[in-house]
Amino acid sequence: MADIGPARTDREIVIASNRGPVSFVREGDQIVAMRGAGGLVTALTGALQRSGGRWIASAMTHEDREQAEAGWLDMATGGEKYSLRYLAFDPETYDAFYNGISNRVLWFVHHYLWDVTTAPRFDQDVRDSWDAYRRVNEAFAEALAVEGAEMPEPPAYLVQDYHLSLGPALLRERQPDAAIVHFSHIPFAGPIYLRILPTFMWEELLAGVLGADLVGFNAARWADHFLLACRELNGAKVDLRRRVVRWHGRATHVGVYPISVDVEDLRDLAGSTETKNAREWIEDFRGDAKLILRVDRAELSKNALRGFAAYEELLTRSPGSRGRVKFLALLTPSRDSVPEYRQYMDECFAAVERINERFGNSAWQPVEMVVKDDLPLSIAGYQLYDVLLVNPVLDGMNLVAKEGPVLNDRNGVLVLSENAGAFAELGRYALRVNPFDITETAKALATGLDMDEAERVRRERGLRAAIARNRLDQWVPKQLEDLDRITGRARDA
Amino acid sequence: MADIGPARTDREIVIASNRGPVSFVREGDQIVAMRGAGGLVTALTGALQRSGGRWIASAMTHEDREQAEAGWLDMATGGEKYSLRYLAFDPETYDAFYNGISNRVLWFVHHYLWDVTTAPRFDQDVRDSWDAYRRVNEAFAEALAVEGAEMPEPPAYLVQDYHLSLGPALLRERQPDAAIVHFSHIPFAGPIYLRILPTFMWEELLAGVLGADLVGFNAARWADHFLLACRELNGAKVDLRRRVVRWHGRATHVGVYPISVDVEDLRDLAGSTETKNAREWIEDFRGDAKLILRVDRAELSKNALRGFAAYEELLTRSPGSRGRVKFLALLTPSRDSVPEYRQYMDECFAAVERINERFGNSAWQPVEMVVKDDLPLSIAGYQLYDVLLVNPVLDGMNLVAKEGPVLNDRNGVLVLSENAGAFAELGRYALRVNPFDITETAKALATGLDMDEAERVRRERGLRAAIARNRLDQWVPKQLEDLDRITGRARDA
Repeated sequence: MADIGPARTDREIVIASNRGPVSFVREGDQIVAMRGAGGLVTALTGALQRSGGRWIASAMTHEDREQAEAGWLDMATGGEKYSLRYLAFDPETYDAFYNGISNRVLWFVHHYLWDVTTAPRFDQDVRDSWDAYRRVNEAFAEALAVEGAEMPEPPAYLVQDYHLSLGPALLRERQPDAAIVHFSHIPFAGPIYLRILPTFMWEELLAGVLGADLVGFNAARWADHFLLACRELNGAKVDLRRRVVRWHGRATHVGVYPISVDVEDLRDLAGSTETKNAREWIEDFRGDAKLILRVDRAELSKNALRGFAAYEELLTRSPGSRGRVKFLALLTPSRDSVPEYRQYMDECFAAVERINERFGNSAWQPVEMVVKDDLPLSIAGYQLYDVLLVNPVLDGMNLVAKEGPVLNDRNGVLVLSENAGAFAELGRYALRVNPFDITETAKALATGLDMDEAERVRRERGLRAAIARNRLDQWVPKQLEDLDRITGRARDA
Repeated sequence: MADIGPARTDREIVIASNRGPVSFVREGDQIVAMRGAGGLVTALTGALQRSGGRWIASAMTHEDREQAEAGWLDMATGGEKYSLRYLAFDPETYDAFYNGISNRVLWFVHHYLWDVTTAPRFDQDVRDSWDAYRRVNEAFAEALAVEGAEMPEPPAYLVQDYHLSLGPALLRERQPDAAIVHFSHIPFAGPIYLRILPTFMWEELLAGVLGADLVGFNAARWADHFLLACRELNGAKVDLRRRVVRWHGRATHVGVYPISVDVEDLRDLAGSTETKNAREWIEDFRGDAKLILRVDRAELSKNALRGFAAYEELLTRSPGSRGRVKFLALLTPSRDSVPEYRQYMDECFAAVERINERFGNSAWQPVEMVVKDDLPLSIAGYQLYDVLLVNPVLDGMNLVAKEGPVLNDRNGVLVLSENAGAFAELGRYALRVNPFDITETAKALATGLDMDEAERVRRERGLRAAIARNRLDQWVPKQLEDLDRITGRARDA
């Protein structure tokens, strides 16, 4: 980013995201706000609180939809204070926006998940879903514009993720001088793969994101992909080195802002009673064996199946490891209404069964897969692993790779896919794997299990230092600083 | 390519390719040499004859292997005169080289054919196959080096295609000053997709090709992909604009040389009795209907299945077209020992059956699929189509898109995938489709069927002129001219 001058980061911010920071659910007679887990909510609500600000999100539950009718809600949960507004959509439109396009088209294209010989097939249904996707993005843009117009000073708009790819351009139509950041939390497809989308769709997608002044990604690779994809737009001038796209008389800057984790929050969770109970369960499962752990959503891109294959190769090629290692896979259910996901999970269960039958005995169960939403169990797993396997096919960042080392008690070793965004920060202290390479992954697991104490300590320290260096509470301010520089606000101040 | 000075293109050439220009087969008591079909053989043998030269290829049939023992063969078939030598490999090595790596790994990676959630899985077997691939490439390099050393003047080596990706570097080890061109007839994977290969494999692959002085592709897109992929190599300096890669103290230039078709040869085939008979069969099939044609190898990347889906959408949405159009799909059997290919063909047959059942009646069969190796039938089809559907997922060039317009009698319309290399030359006279977009493809078919005569004539003329401009007999000389300029030979002459 060109250093134009000092920045002010105190302007009010307005956030737009599909999923809100809380979700309302009914508990008995009461409606309660459940705070979302994860660093993103912490980072964004922290920034909101500092600057004073507002958050617009989609109503996702029935109770959210009831809250949506109330307009702005004053939130004061967990020490954070900001205004929240839900947008409610008719269920058919929302389903087309969320499942039809966001999850089944955009998630797939950015993670290279299609079997391109047979899928996707873009037909009229996809066009209808795209219209719904655009309508939802328009509703967000309209709500943001109305909100911004009423504020005493022009705010900074922070538009989150691939659900709202069209938001920046639609907002700029309504407010030509708006200061807009778009952040993609997931990878970005390279030009060939992006162009699997119908032409009108990828053109509109890129134009939508380019409505922002600043486009943020978790890793340099995704930023480069976005820039390369923009070269496919008619008339766009792309400066790959400075990361600027000039198109239709405007400049859009592209930046890399790797998101981090909330270390304090994680440590609090680690001290809870639930975590202690979960820890006992895991210690019981492990016995004297060394523990390989994976923690993921049950998501195609996380690559659980090849992880089991690598473990199987390890047991096959290192007979000495049998009986002395156990693999615990903790998967949170995800998108189980999508056929591809159900089939994939069936294959995972089959792999687990095969490995246990082939190698296990009454005294030793080689692998256990738990599919449920159980944060304390994951936290306890983080404390106890000897090797943490993080081998996604592609992953925007992957916070498991950061959460694990923060909490681990045993100088555990991180085996990390080179295709996770986190690799840029953590790779030098991890054992690097190509996620498609079963043999390499099996060898990395063996290396991790056998590593001597001094080397494990060196690596664990490196990981913790790298994670600590990138402070979560700086994630939004860095974007705002760059936004101020780009929009020249710093010079006017 | 920088214009350094005039070039001499008269040096002797030595060609290396997996498949030779002829293949020997037994007919009764005799062993006869069957000349391979297609423009590539014509282009290369034509160049050999002009310069005098030699060709080294793999023995693929039993009879080839017998010929291999004879050493150099003097060839004089079809008016061409050159020397041919077969290299014979033990069957296991050759299978690992040809099926294990070339067809199942390199073809898949460059055409984006994997369902990456589950395939590929690189294990020890793939490593063993890669060793075989390297051994075959070494045998080629060794044979080329021995040959070149015996020639009065240093020759130009033309190394063909993805089977011999390691050939250039292995030859350069043996002959540091060799003048080497490598030409890829297929697409080249972008960096993310290429890096699905195990790290050692993609590094060795790029290093192998970079052993050449000049690396040729059929289209600018594939050249750009190769250059972008080279940026992933440690220490490589890539000039995307000038298309030069500097690495390990050497420069490799990248050029675009779209291959063409032999127009005279095609016209000769069109006049044959076999073609006339085939023509009668097609005219009988068509009756009064308009004819949509596809001609392809039965190959995943050719996208026959989505072609049928588009035709089905056409019949669904344009009831008026029913009974007035017929679709003839001519597919040459290909790789039917590979499970993915067999399953794909099953799906194609099912689609054809479904369409015929859904829309057909006693007077009208909407679609016919013929799977056999029948060149006269294809040639007759070229003459007779009203619309030619060429919709590959990805295709290095696609010569069907050139052969059809050369022979067509009816001012037929070309519907062409933007992902075929041929699109760069022919796109402005074709109806462009995104091959994944069923609706767009269906609309293009409808537009082609309804197009008025004047517009069809204008487009057909444009296609023929574009094809005629790019002469097949200039394809090798252009590469040799650039090679001479790069290696500075022109200045020494």
